[in-house]
Amino acid sequence: MGVVVPFEERAAEPGIEALVSLVAADMGRVNEMILSRTGSDVTMIPEVANHLISSGGKRLRPMLTLAAGQLSGYRGDGHVKLAASVEFMHTATLLHDDVVDESDMRRGKIAARVKWGNEASVLVGDFLLGQAFRMMVEVGSLRALEILSDAAAIIAEGEVMQLAAAKNIETTEDNYLAIIRAKTAELFGAACEVGPVIAERPKSEAEACRSYGMNLGVAFQLVDDALDYGGAAAKLGKNVGDDFREGKITLPVVLSVRRGTDADRAFFRRTLERGEIAERDLEEALSIMRRNKALEDTVARARHYGAMARDALGIYPDGPMKRALLDAVEFCVARAY
Amino acid sequence: MGVVVPFEERAAEPGIEALVSLVAADMGRVNEMILSRTGSDVTMIPEVANHLISSGGKRLRPMLTLAAGQLSGYRGDGHVKLAASVEFMHTATLLHDDVVDESDMRRGKIAARVKWGNEASVLVGDFLLGQAFRMMVEVGSLRALEILSDAAAIIAEGEVMQLAAAKNIETTEDNYLAIIRAKTAELFGAACEVGPVIAERPKSEAEACRSYGMNLGVAFQLVDDALDYGGAAAKLGKNVGDDFREGKITLPVVLSVRRGTDADRAFFRRTLERGEIAERDLEEALSIMRRNKALEDTVARARHYGAMARDALGIYPDGPMKRALLDAVEFCVARAY
Repeated sequence: MGVVVPFEERAAEPGIEALVSLVAADMGRVNEMILSRTGSDVTMIPEVANHLISSGGKRLRPMLTLAAGQLSGYRGDGHVKLAASVEFMHTATLLHDDVVDESDMRRGKIAARVKWGNEASVLVGDFLLGQAFRMMVEVGSLRALEILSDAAAIIAEGEVMQLAAAKNIETTEDNYLAIIRAKTAELFGAACEVGPVIAERPKSEAEACRSYGMNLGVAFQLVDDALDYGGAAAKLGKNVGDDFREGKITLPVVLSVRRGTDADRAFFRRTLERGEIAERDLEEALSIMRRNKALEDTVARARHYGAMARDALGIYPDGPMKRALLDAVEFCVARAY
Repeated sequence: MGVVVPFEERAAEPGIEALVSLVAADMGRVNEMILSRTGSDVTMIPEVANHLISSGGKRLRPMLTLAAGQLSGYRGDGHVKLAASVEFMHTATLLHDDVVDESDMRRGKIAARVKWGNEASVLVGDFLLGQAFRMMVEVGSLRALEILSDAAAIIAEGEVMQLAAAKNIETTEDNYLAIIRAKTAELFGAACEVGPVIAERPKSEAEACRSYGMNLGVAFQLVDDALDYGGAAAKLGKNVGDDFREGKITLPVVLSVRRGTDADRAFFRRTLERGEIAERDLEEALSIMRRNKALEDTVARARHYGAMARDALGIYPDGPMKRALLDAVEFCVARAY
């Protein structure tokens, strides 16, 4: 299983330390907000929610909301609630995804659905979504509400697209891109866009932040999909080959199918479409991907979207937050975990 | 299975014809809105959504929003979108409920989850919830948004409470009431309250409409729970005994456990708590309920909440819409299906 994706940037590995440190104070308030809004007399709710929330994702999405708020010179309190909303929307999606994918692991822990049942994952996800909207409404910006409710519908639409494309190796790169734009990038874009929006900055800045977020989100997902075939399970917090076992068609597969031999296509048809997966098939999939340069080119595509994300911020003058956001792109593309 | 709950009011069966006819024009616009907002290029979305939406529930909840708007002299367009939002929230809940309950039937049709899979039910439910929020945001009333987003979180909380209480015959009538207030009555209350709210009527009217809706919702759910043990499957659109088979603790059970013999309690412990259900156990459950007058007293309780719903409208002068709403209470309590 010792496959290593050749991340050229890995040596440098510029972190998100700058971003983390610039938003640290606000992030403390977001974490308090998250804790208080998962509270409920119905004890199962904080149990399930905190199982996932406390298992320590990087909280990249809420960080982006805080960062975009700061970049926009926002002086109020609304960005904290919006950031918490964004994290709740993301957590709700993870809970529902686990049910859809029948995953057993999430962030290196047993998935909530295994511990408390599918029912709890569906319903606590719904609760978190409801709480997310409550917080957004409290902020009182109709434009921010519009952006985030649009995102909620589009994310679900993307998940359904992914479901419809599952097990279909005819999926094109365009189909795949449309799916990850909706299911992943949309929330990154919305998380960034609401920053300038609540700061009442001009439309050009809202568009710049949205474009930064969308392109960063695409890059992030592309790297995620490459890591699913190349990361180490311990670091990744999930098993290598999950996508393969679930019949998910991601870019490494799309490229392998396009570039490969008839035998390669027959292999993916058997394993991904018909779900007939034998002991050593994951290794065979990796070997086909290596032969077709599918993993490194997935990362190369990610680098392309990362470059677009960076250029989107071109309208902003140089400064510590801008530099931190540019570094965050490197982090997403080059992350080793 | 020919068990008939002795609904004394059934002979009269006052309909909701008056309500239906008063909101008919607006309801046409709601139906168009529903159709257009379930549209998506992702064909599975309108398929799944319309399977359930077109299977013709009574659309009681959106009717209540339209009616409360009219009762409040509202002159704008917002009530149409809010009514469609309310129906989407309800439909999303049904889709997720089917996954949680593992139901095979819904409104006399095969449940969406059986036809398209649990995944589709979870995700299309999420999509409809997203679309519901989109429409609410378009209406632009922050107070209406607050009411409906509160409802969304509380409904999910109620569903989790129900899950936690499932298979526990120690559940008290108070526990049960807290559950149905959250999972059912809250949406009825919110659906009614937003009418006076968008019409910018005084708080006393918003409270009256909310109280009408909440109490109507409690009555509605109590009758539903009685019907689950007493209706005819063909009329009910679902199988008699679903709650029994799923180990759901509803008021007919709560009353039977409180009033019954040790043998009765042992019976429910075996069937509902341990899930050991044999061929003739549903008949035995019905016989225990008859002996303890559990079904007629569940309906009697419903009548009590119905009376409270009617009295809540006492602050309004007499008029066709008020009379229609009073009749609707009778319909909910006395409905034969």
